[in-house]
Amino acid sequence: MFVTFEGIDRSGKTSQAKLLAEALGEDALLVREPGGTPAAERIRGLVKDADVALSPVAEMLLFCAARAALVDDAIRPALAAGKVVVSDRYADSTVAYQGGARGLGIDRVEQLNDWVTGGLWPDVTFLLEIEPAAAAGRRSDHEDRFEREGEELQRAVAAAYEELADRHPDRYVRIAAGLPMEEVHEQVLAELRARRPEAVR
Amino acid sequence: MFVTFEGIDRSGKTSQAKLLAEALGEDALLVREPGGTPAAERIRGLVKDADVALSPVAEMLLFCAARAALVDDAIRPALAAGKVVVSDRYADSTVAYQGGARGLGIDRVEQLNDWVTGGLWPDVTFLLEIEPAAAAGRRSDHEDRFEREGEELQRAVAAAYEELADRHPDRYVRIAAGLPMEEVHEQVLAELRARRPEAVR
Repeated sequence: MFVTFEGIDRSGKTSQAKLLAEALGEDALLVREPGGTPAAERIRGLVKDADVALSPVAEMLLFCAARAALVDDAIRPALAAGKVVVSDRYADSTVAYQGGARGLGIDRVEQLNDWVTGGLWPDVTFLLEIEPAAAAGRRSDHEDRFEREGEELQRAVAAAYEELADRHPDRYVRIAAGLPMEEVHEQVLAELRARRPEAVR
Repeated sequence: MFVTFEGIDRSGKTSQAKLLAEALGEDALLVREPGGTPAAERIRGLVKDADVALSPVAEMLLFCAARAALVDDAIRPALAAGKVVVSDRYADSTVAYQGGARGLGIDRVEQLNDWVTGGLWPDVTFLLEIEPAAAAGRRSDHEDRFEREGEELQRAVAAAYEELADRHPDRYVRIAAGLPMEEVHEQVLAELRARRPEAVR
């Protein structure tokens, strides 16, 4: 089973992905995007560097390159070994940020991702929904390229995620992420138990 | 005018691009791929590093990302200023290496490049043709990822370039690159003079 967490910056994806992977124990592989392989980590350094100018297209291609490496070297082998792969962001992030918010086109970016991942899409995607203004309140000291651009970008990303949830109703599970972390985690577990009782004990 | 040099490794592209740029003087901008902008040079370091494992798809995306940056930040501004842009490799390299030789598909990779360059294709492409065995004789001490793979890869790339020359007969000019460097250069100049007398004095 392949499970992803999506949402705007500071919606709690990283925490929820970790909590889920811990709950699943040895049966799970936790990965984060971009990153997870030597090549992908080098790409991560580049795309997160707020001092390097990158066009939306270049940004999209770099995220896709890191993803292609992660899929080949980590996700597919783990799935083949019967693990549950939990990913903190995946292709939908590029579709929402670059395809939607940056205007490159949701269809086109989705098709490109279908190609570069060899058609690997998650079984379940948890969309953590939070008001962009509330997410901004969780601001950290070190802001990357995306966090720097602030609430306007995050609103556009949230709108793109809504569209993706509507497009893929079987895969998407929308969760109100303003709740306490433990409550969100319980909802995640309950949803997975309902879908795959054998995978989540 | 946008002029590119294509061909297998060690076919003399870099020398010919330089000679042409020198002949054109201040009217020319010489660029090389991948590279030419801060982001693209960082990507270059990654794709040329023979110690980093990269799938054909990841490789393709990185070359395209570097290209997108180069087009936006260097090539389009120079063309808008009326310069002749001379590039040592461009999109056709990705189409030939990853689309053709690596099997990702010439059509698909060409379409992707059409997207990421905003539809910017060269006015003239000089294909420097040389026998892969002869090119291998020009081997240097420091081999990058592609040079290491040897003659078999180069043969597949040469075949892909032939297909591209057939597809785009108006744009492609095939030149036998086994000739002395100065003779090849004279052919390049003669061809450009015939096409754009005002650009090449």
